[in-house]
Amino acid sequence: MLYMVHMLVDIPATLPKGEADRLKADEKAYAQRLQREGKWRHLWRIAGQYANYSVFDVASNDDLHETLTALPLYPYMTISVTPLAQHPSAIAAN
Amino acid sequence: MLYMVHMLVDIPATLPKGEADRLKADEKAYAQRLQREGKWRHLWRIAGQYANYSVFDVASNDDLHETLTALPLYPYMTISVTPLAQHPSAIAAN
Amino acid sequence: MLYMVHMLVDIPATLPKGEADRLKADEKAYAQRLQREGKWRHLWRIAGQYANYSVFDVASNDDLHETLTALPLYPYMTISVTPLAQHPSAIAAN
Amino acid sequence: MLYMVHMLVDIPATLPKGEADRLKADEKAYAQRLQREGKWRHLWRIAGQYANYSVFDVASNDDLHETLTALPLYPYMTISVTPLAQHPSAIAAN
Amino acid sequence: MLYMVHMLVDIPATLPKGEADRLKADEKAYAQRLQREGKWRHLWRIAGQYANYSVFDVASNDDLHETLTALPLYPYMTISVTPLAQHPSAIAAN
Amino acid sequence: MLYMVHMLVDIPATLPKGEADRLKADEKAYAQRLQREGKWRHLWRIAGQYANYSVFDVASNDDLHETLTALPLYPYMTISVTPLAQHPSAIAAN
Amino acid sequence: MLYMVHMLVDIPATLPKGEADRLKADEKAYAQRLQREGKWRHLWRIAGQYANYSVFDVASNDDLHETLTALPLYPYMTISVTPLAQHPSAIAAN
Amino acid sequence: MLYMVHMLVDIPATLPKGEADRLKADEKAYAQRLQREGKWRHLWRIAGQYANYSVFDVASNDDLHETLTALPLYPYMTISVTPLAQHPSAIAAN
Amino acid sequence: MLYMVHMLVDIPATLPKGEADRLKADEKAYAQRLQREGKWRHLWRIAGQYANYSVFDVASNDDLHETLTALPLYPYMTISVTPLAQHPSAIAAN
Amino acid sequence: MLYMVHMLVDIPATLPKGEADRLKADEKAYAQRLQREGKWRHLWRIAGQYANYSVFDVASNDDLHETLTALPLYPYMTISVTPLAQHPSAIAAN
Repeated sequence: MLYMVHMLVDIPATLPKGEADRLKADEKAYAQRLQREGKWRHLWRIAGQYANYSVFDVASNDDLHETLTALPLYPYMTISVTPLAQHPSAIAAN
Repeated sequence: MLYMVHMLVDIPATLPKGEADRLKADEKAYAQRLQREGKWRHLWRIAGQYANYSVFDVASNDDLHETLTALPLYPYMTISVTPLAQHPSAIAAN
Repeated sequence: MLYMVHMLVDIPATLPKGEADRLKADEKAYAQRLQREGKWRHLWRIAGQYANYSVFDVASNDDLHETLTALPLYPYMTISVTPLAQHPSAIAAN
Repeated sequence: MLYMVHMLVDIPATLPKGEADRLKADEKAYAQRLQREGKWRHLWRIAGQYANYSVFDVASNDDLHETLTALPLYPYMTISVTPLAQHPSAIAAN
Repeated sequence: MLYMVHMLVDIPATLPKGEADRLKADEKAYAQRLQREGKWRHLWRIAGQYANYSVFDVASNDDLHETLTALPLYPYMTISVTPLAQHPSAIAAN
Repeated sequence: MLYMVHMLVDIPATLPKGEADRLKADEKAYAQRLQREGKWRHLWRIAGQYANYSVFDVASNDDLHETLTALPLYPYMTISVTPLAQHPSAIAAN
Repeated sequence: MLYMVHMLVDIPATLPKGEADRLKADEKAYAQRLQREGKWRHLWRIAGQYANYSVFDVASNDDLHETLTALPLYPYMTISVTPLAQHPSAIAAN
Repeated sequence: MLYMVHMLVDIPATLPKGEADRLKADEKAYAQRLQREGKWRHLWRIAGQYANYSVFDVASNDDLHETLTALPLYPYMTISVTPLAQHPSAIAAN
Repeated sequence: MLYMVHMLVDIPATLPKGEADRLKADEKAYAQRLQREGKWRHLWRIAGQYANYSVFDVASNDDLHETLTALPLYPYMTISVTPLAQHPSAIAAN
Repeated sequence: MLYMVHMLVDIPATLPKGEADRLKADEKAYAQRLQREGKWRHLWRIAGQYANYSVFDVASNDDLHETLTALPLYPYMTISVTPLAQHPSAIAAN
């Protein structure tokens, strides 16, 4: 089941650089693992912003929530979620 | 080159049903042709709305504009466009 | 799986009263059938508005979309959907 | 009498972790006690956000205000309240 | 129990003048009866707008909803409702 | 002359508790004095928020401004003002 | 007593041209009479819009409301009002 | 050439009082000098807010920008600018 | 003197096609004449919308207003204007 | 390929002046180099604000993103991007 997720990241300047770097590395590893597992189906950078549009393929709303709140940068993100359904004109199944 | 496109459709009640049906059929044919050609890479319905999120893969801003304004339902759509860039954590190229 | 759904109804004055009445009766019958089936778990009127907050319990985003677009008054509604997850402090399962 | 309540939580990074943990534990205990008493009728997590939709069943606006301001995390919440009325198509009484 | 109610009136130009005049007269009579009964405690015009701020003193959310939807001009109003509680610094009871 | 005033209070966590308590006590005393004098005609708490709707009865815009900026909590408030006029359906004079 | 007033005019295409022209002429005459009387102290066109910023010098909120609702184009305007006070750095009295 | 300028001032609590006082005194002197020179034609306080509406009479957009950025409190202001044109119903030239 | 102008066009479906076509042709001729004269310095289509960003080089706010209101499609446009100043890092004069 | 870019700069007061000055100098050098190279085609200050409208001429969305994120002041900017297409009435090619 697919969800469009918009993430806006805002890491405060008060976070020590070392900790920020570690969080970003963890975030990258987590994101790549979930992409390889098929859960994080698409990940695009929004041009000019520290933000992304992502498509998640998860089993349920609960699964989505757990996946998102486990993001290492979650405490610094503003997230909005849009549930996606099959479009009647799409040639591929969701 | 990828763009996230949000389309909200609002067909006025004054449009004769026959014309509306014809436009919708044309829209579907056009959408499926562009999907097969790879230009309209993704098409998802937003649950509960006459709206969609789409990802277009086009050569340029001009190509995108021509593609969108050629939509049979374009006169009845409110469209917003977000240019997408490669995300450093994405495991696939855009 | 639960979704919070906000529906705002705006029936145009140009719709003949007979047709509006028929649609409202159909809407009521449909709403009550779905409530009895357990799909439309809660339905509350927003005080002072022709609007409601509803909670739907459906199998998927697709199921939700089909259920909402089948509403007899759907063409006259503005709908927004919020996916709900289990709250860790809730004493009941969703 | 029912109210839809939307709570968005934003605990500042400057709050010591120990104090934050204590407040969260108090919040959970308070929320569960009110649910058992029937005052906090529903509590749902909004997927992807540190936010919830809740339905309160209280005696009055004053009762609601006292209940909400007594939340241990109240100082860190942005709250909005929507009064709910009986929907004519609802099969259950509020 | 008190509620702040904001009403914005927008009577379409297509409504025949005779019917609009009759509705306005009914609205005035209804408003004055409810003020005399104590239910519509305050009624103020917003300077420069066809809008008002009102305070209603009703028994419940349901009572408020029934009172507002019975307004003769209700179909032409956009209404928002804010539940009011006793302010700790107020010298009068609500 | 009446004005609807909406006040939203946001006392920063960095303000020492002693100073905050003193300001709140001063605010209460000031509010009650003005209510007794008839200048602050109504004061209602917005349910669930550290905010109020108030009606002021002052001689002029200048009088209103001086009255509001003299509020002990003024530096921590976001205030919006709506001038009120006599409503033709009101049974009482403003 | 001064008020900043923002007026946005939207004359519907369905209004017969003759009637629109008559209303505009009436509006102009009314505006110029009030300017000569000193009530409509300033009148500026917002560049690129059918809108204006105006400053009114009236006796009260009621006076302002009556003045504005008597505008011949009032039914086609969206008006917002901001009460002005003496600025401590102004070298002229309001 | 005239411009309507809206200035909202927000001096952070962390600015030492002495420095804030000096900036305010400088701001007042600067504002009064520009008023005497005719460049800052009007200056009104918005009732209930640390904000003003001002009308500037300057030679160009560049002149306006230099004038505004030279405000001693400029770093603490949110400014919006609306270019004004001669209104056809105004009895005075801009 | 430069201004950034955003124009959003919304031609109602009720306008006869012949009249709409004539207006569009007039608009094009007018736009091209002003570009050749140097007044309409830039004109860009916003991808996916019946809208444009334009830069005008005019003598004054009045000149801009007259230029914009003379647009054949002006009655069907929503226009917003941003005055531009010389940027200190720009290598070219405005 | 052209993009309209809006940049709003907000340098926190906590950034040491020396570092802010260095960043601003770097920003200026970077901006001027890109202008000379033709990538940053236009750069205009928004009158009264620490903001600009810019037009970039880049090869792709990725090129734009890299160019913008390399801005020395990027961490202190809020950026929005609008893709531009050739306007049919423009006399010059984009």
